Order: sequence, then C-alpha cells, then structure tokens
Amino acid sequence: MNYTAIFEDAVEMLRREKRYRVFADIERIAGRFPHALWRTPAGMREIVVWCSNDYLGMGQHEGSIEAMISAARRFGVGAGGTRNISGNSHQVVTLEEELADLHGKEAALVFTSGYVSNQTGIATLGRLLPDALILSDQLNHNSMIEGVRQSGREKAIFRHNDLDHLEDLLRKAGRERAKLIAFESVYSMDGDIAPIGRICDLAERYGAMTYLDEVHAVGMYGPRGGGIAERDGEMGRVDVIEGTLAKAFGALGGYVAAAAPVVDAIRSHAPGFIFTSALPPPVAAAAQASVRHLKTSQAERDAQQANAARTKAALIGAGLPVVLSQTHIVPVIVGDAERCKAASDMLLAEHGIYIQPINYPTVPRGTERLRITPTPFHGEALIAGLTEALVAVWRKLDLPFQPMAAAAE
Amino acid sequence: MNYTAIFEDAVEMLRREKRYRVFADIERIAGRFPHALWRTPAGMREIVVWCSNDYLGMGQHEGSIEAMISAARRFGVGAGGTRNISGNSHQVVTLEEELADLHGKEAALVFTSGYVSNQTGIATLGRLLPDALILSDQLNHNSMIEGVRQSGREKAIFRHNDLDHLEDLLRKAGRERAKLIAFESVYSMDGDIAPIGRICDLAERYGAMTYLDEVHAVGMYGPRGGGIAERDGEMGRVDVIEGTLAKAFGALGGYVAAAAPVVDAIRSHAPGFIFTSALPPPVAAAAQASVRHLKTSQAERDAQQANAARTKAALIGAGLPVVLSQTHIVPVIVGDAERCKAASDMLLAEHGIYIQPINYPTVPRGTERLRITPTPFHGEALIAGLTEALVAVWRKLDLPFQPMAAAAE
Ligand SMILES: Cc1ncc(COP(=O)(O)O)c(C=O)c1O
Ligand SMILES: Cc1ncc(COP(=O)(O)O)c(C=O)c1O
Repeated sequence: MNYTAIFEDAVEMLRREKRYRVFADIERIAGRFPHALWRTPAGMREIVVWCSNDYLGMGQHEGSIEAMISAARRFGVGAGGTRNISGNSHQVVTLEEELADLHGKEAALVFTSGYVSNQTGIATLGRLLPDALILSDQLNHNSMIEGVRQSGREKAIFRHNDLDHLEDLLRKAGRERAKLIAFESVYSMDGDIAPIGRICDLAERYGAMTYLDEVHAVGMYGPRGGGIAERDGEMGRVDVIEGTLAKAFGALGGYVAAAAPVVDAIRSHAPGFIFTSALPPPVAAAAQASVRHLKTSQAERDAQQANAARTKAALIGAGLPVVLSQTHIVPVIVGDAERCKAASDMLLAEHGIYIQPINYPTVPRGTERLRITPTPFHGEALIAGLTEALVAVWRKLDLPFQPMAAAAE
Repeated sequence: MNYTAIFEDAVEMLRREKRYRVFADIERIAGRFPHALWRTPAGMREIVVWCSNDYLGMGQHEGSIEAMISAARRFGVGAGGTRNISGNSHQVVTLEEELADLHGKEAALVFTSGYVSNQTGIATLGRLLPDALILSDQLNHNSMIEGVRQSGREKAIFRHNDLDHLEDLLRKAGRERAKLIAFESVYSMDGDIAPIGRICDLAERYGAMTYLDEVHAVGMYGPRGGGIAERDGEMGRVDVIEGTLAKAFGALGGYVAAAAPVVDAIRSHAPGFIFTSALPPPVAAAAQASVRHLKTSQAERDAQQANAARTKAALIGAGLPVVLSQTHIVPVIVGDAERCKAASDMLLAEHGIYIQPINYPTVPRGTERLRITPTPFHGEALIAGLTEALVAVWRKLDLPFQPMAAAAE
C-alpha cells in the first residue's frame, strides 16, 4: 500500500483542476488596516487587503487590543482546560451574557469557532429531537452541512431562499414530526439575504424550529449589531441564532444564542463543546470589547455601507461584472478557476492589491469570482485604486466587461 | 411539537443521573498559578487549582504573555479570515515550521483546536484512503471517535493498548487494504501510555498508517517536548502526530505533523480546516513562544515529574485510592457520580481546593474520579494541603481508603 502516492494524487488532482490553494503569507499591521505586509521570496511588500472578513476592522480596534493585552497580563494566555475542567474563565461567562443580550435571548454559549458552533450545535439539536427532519438551505455553509450529517438525522434540502419549496417540504413532513430549519441570513459568497420573517412564518405554521447562521451579519446589521434578524425585527421569532466572533467582531470564536433550555441542552450534550479547551480569557475579552463597542457605535456600520456602495458604483461604472448584492459583499465574477487565480495573482504582483480567488468547492464551478469586502477603512482613494487595477487586469486577461443584474447561480 | 420540553428533558435526565455539569466561575491569576479566584454568589474566594491542563503553567509564562501582547499590538487581535482568504498570518506559518521541527516531520498544519485537528484530520485521511479500515483504540478521545465517524469508513475498535487484538484485526483486514491505526500516547483519564514502538512494528508488518494523538504528552515528554514518541525514539516511525497548543503549551489551537504530502492533502481537503477563521496572530505567537521555550528548557518537565511523584507518594501514604499511572496524571477513584461531585464540592467549599469531578461519559460509569494534575507550581506545601483536605473529605463522606494497583477499567 503506497500511502504517499495516494496523498500526492489527492493534491495533484487539485493542481490539474487549477484549484490548488497557495496561502499568501501576510502580516497585518494594527492601526494601518487594510494595509499589510506580504512576504514574498523576493522580500516584504506593502499591499492593500480587499478580501478580509475583519469586516469592520475591529481586529485593530484599540479597545479590543487593550482588552486582549490587559487580560493576557492578568490571566495569562490560555484557559487551561475545557469549560468543565478548570477552563471556565469569568471572561467567557461575561462574553456569553453580552451575546445573549445582543440577541435578546435568555442564554448564549461560546465555542472555539463559528464552524464548531454550527457543526456540533446542529448535530446536537438534531440528535436530541427524536426522528427530526432537518430542512437545510441548498447554499448553507459547510459547517452546517457537516452538522446535519453528524446529527445522523434525515435531511431535506430546499432550493436557496425558496419559500415555496421549503413549504412543500414542511407540509410533507407533517405537523407532528420534529423539524429544524437551518439557514443563513447573509450568504457570504453572493451577499444575498434570506427572508427571515417569512421563513419564521412557515416555521410557526408547520411547527418547526429555526436555526439561523448570522456569521456574515452580526456586528454589521441591526441597530446594535444583532444581525439581519435584528434589523428586520424578527430576532425574537428565531429559535437559535448562531454567530462568529472572528469576522465583524475581529477576534476568534463562535456562539449560539437561544432560550435557556436549548442552550443548556447544547452545553450539556454537544461533544464539540464538551471535549475541547475553552477560549482563552484574552480572546474572550477582546471579543467582548468588540461586541460591546458595536452595540452602541453606529459609525463603523455606516462607513462600511457607504464604502460598499461606493465600491459597487465605481466597479459597475467601469463595466465590471459585479454581482449586485444587498449587502457589504461585492462579488466580481470571473467564471473559471484558472483565470480567477491569474487575475488574483496579477492584482497582487502588479498592483499590490490582495483579493483571494474564490474557486470550487467554496462556490459552484462556473461562478469562480473575486470577492471584495469594503470596510470602513476602504475609502475613496483605495476604491479608485482598486477600480483602476481591476480594469487593467480585466483588459490584460481579456476578461469580459459586462453588467450583472443579480446573484450568479 | 413542544420543543422546549424535549430540551428540558435532555437536561433533566442528566440531573437525575447526578451528572449535570456546573462550571466553576474561575479567574486565573497570571504569575500566581495555580492560585486563582473563584466567583461565588457570596463573593470572590482565593482557591488552588489542582485539575488544570495548563500542565506546565505555560499559560502564565512571561515569554508567552509578552509574545501575545506584542503580537496584539503589532497585528491586532484576529486573523481576519480563513487560512486561504486573507487569514494566513506569518505567525501561523512560523508556528507550523516550529511544530514540524519539534516532531522531526517535513510539515505541520495548525487548526483552531486539538479537537478539530483530530476530527477533521482523521475524517479527511479516511476519506482520501479508498475503502480504508480505521483501527481505533477503545479508549480514544471523543474527537478521534467523531473523526472516524465523519470519515464514513469502516472502523474496528481494538481493546485498549491490546497488541494481540490489534494484530488480529490487522491480519483479518489483510495487507492490501488501506488501514489507519488511530491511538493516543498518554490516555488522559488513567494516565497510562501506549506501546508506540510495538504498534509501529505491527503497522509496518501489516502495511498500516499510524495516527498518534500526543495531546497529553507534547511539551512534557521527550528531550525537546516532542512527546512520548520522542522519548521512546519512535517519532520517525509514526506517520501522523497530532497535538494541542492548549495544554502544556498553555495557549489554544491544535495541529498535525507529518510528511509533506500528507499535510498538504489534509490542508487541501479537510473541511474543518478550510472553512473556518484562522488562529489569531497573538495566539499563534504565544503558542510558538511556549513551544520554542520548551524545546530547550528541561526545568518545567523535571519539576512537573518531581511534583507528580511527590503527590502520588503523599496520597498513597494517606491510603487514598490513587490509580498508579506512569505519567503526571494522578487519578483518585470515587466510583460514583454523586459522591464524586460531593467530594469535589466539599474540597472547594471547605478547603479552597478545586478539582472538577470526572463523571460519565468522560470516564466509564463506576470509575468516576478526581483527576489531579500536579504542575511545576504545585510544590511541597500545596501537596501537604491537598493530602490533608482529601483525607478530611474522604472521612466525612465515608469513602473507602484503599490502595489501587493499576488503572481502573
Ligand atoms: C456562513 C458561515 N458560517 C460559519 C462560518 C465559520 O465561522 P468561523 O470562521 O468562526 O469558524 C463561516 C466562515 O468561516 C461561514 O461563512
Ligand atoms: C486525547 C485528547 N485529544 C484531543 C483533545 C482536544 O484538544 P483541544 O483541547 O486542543 O481541543 C483532548 C482534550 O481536550 C484530548 O484529551
């Protein structure tokens, strides 16, 4: 058995399909985001990052940095154990209170990542609900898909944001069967938004639970950063809200917020929560500082939306194939893996602009794209530079200039 | 469908079985470990933590704290993305080099936790090996069990550390079939050690790959802290070594180290690696400072072993039912969930000593225990205090004084 050859093949296959991933070696610069240093064999180069999920630049927010530093000095760098075995720091406890309050829920539970929240959260809810059917949006994130799989429950996939299809499936399952609808608010690759209220209508009509991933919305939407459900006034109707501390909140970790018995059941039964070391106090403190700041500060949200609108306008004005999203996410379609990577490489090498190519399996084949995420720190000058660079690359690679009306599917 | 009642029942069941978990609300004190503050409704109390997995106290190591602080100031508190999409900080890249060097492997890959390393690592290896059989030690950690399950491959469980049973299963599978042997070096609940060399003998004889979890050994065993495999001179024979950055290294995160094609295949295919935000630069920097320090400093390892030996001697001298482990882990058996919790509560309330009760499902029913983890900072005076307190609690709860020869099973 030649194991090495098997693993070499598994990688070679990606190279052949032009979707072998090379990670750019980046050094962030606190205080100068989105400027960063790119380490190349030829030395360091300053670049502008246009694909960060540090959506509001909170990773460099002074309050968050100071919270991390002060916690590191006072409590040290690690939790020292699982939540149950000596790792339950007061910083995590108060972070959970902060998050429960953010979403108007009785309780919240913090995990080491949003990925783990979804995977072990959905798996555990599914396992606890006898004979449950899990209704899952077709474009749900891999962490939710793995959670559904790990639950061992039957799943029914509904067409993306398709209420009629969802209703069909709910009706077929019947009122008496336990049902969990799992979906996202902002879908991160197209930037489109789920009809949360109408999904909750269906859930109520057919007696289903709702599980909403707000990973790409928390901090950024709603008057206190509670997400799209808060913005839409639907937060109270969603049973479980899941979020991350690693994107708009700038740190690391994930969470669910829900009624106390739901959170306590996950806390008590979820293997991905129980059997792993807790988030370190400095990370929890930094995250809490961000969450708290964004509850009262609207400035970051306003600036992000303004810059996203400016970016869209500029790129559309230049004839680039922008997917017109309703959110801060600005996808520009290339349509094949090789040219997508070539465009990205050229942007970095020739223009000092870093936008990672997004290829299959993160997006469907044929919709390979550059995914641009303007933040409060991507102002007029950077937008002008981006537009110019994209036009130059589009010309050089002979990519089509064409307007796009809606999300590519 | 009354969902709330279902979740309430799921929790109530644990209460009835006396294994409902209440997390002690602890505030660590950097510089005074293992002393900590316990937050009770009646106010703060100073306590001594005797169940930390910050095995060497590296969570408060000055070099690690300073590394975290300096990285937070320079780079901010978060990674800002997945490894592929703008989250690949230089701090994580050099951490991986440090870990590859630690284990004498070509490459290493960092995850957000040891749990995720095992789960997505084993699942991915299994999925990539056609028709693989995964041979899994009966006492493997939940993260490995979930990884095997997620692989979708057939599994064969061998009796704990039982070479004959393992050989039987290997023989039955035949040389031609892909086989992965998944096991741990130090089993954390009994503190016993796997016969790594002899498992590698079998792996070679029958053409199997080996995957070794060194979570409870890295930093603590071997001349550079490479783990039991390093200590035993077997590191080069183990195909994949998995470890954590959250225990002896005092921070957060997990990793695998292996030959370059294996690491690249996991990097390129593991969903739990691909679809999640990267470890923040300050966490990676803190972890790297610990790993690097423990490569050359033997003092922590020596002091830990000395204090573990002293603790065992003192408790055995007092007639307490200590499981005689070959490692730094000192389990004292109680044998039922309710009295285990009572002993723990009494230690905390009356003696200011924090040792979390370990109940099912973490250990088999009937072997409920107090799991004591002496560190370099648990010296003579603390050991004397612990011994006295345990004896008092044992008397008050009328628990049996009895020597134990070997790991309870
Ligand atoms: C929709 C969605 N959910 C969950 C996650 C995982 O969150 P985290 O990065 O905190 O693991 C991501 C991306 O990382 C995501 O896009
Ligand atoms: C054997 C073993 N492997 C893996 C893990 C998970 O490591 P981490 O805490 O880094 O998630 C643990 C405990 O937490 C463990 O005991």
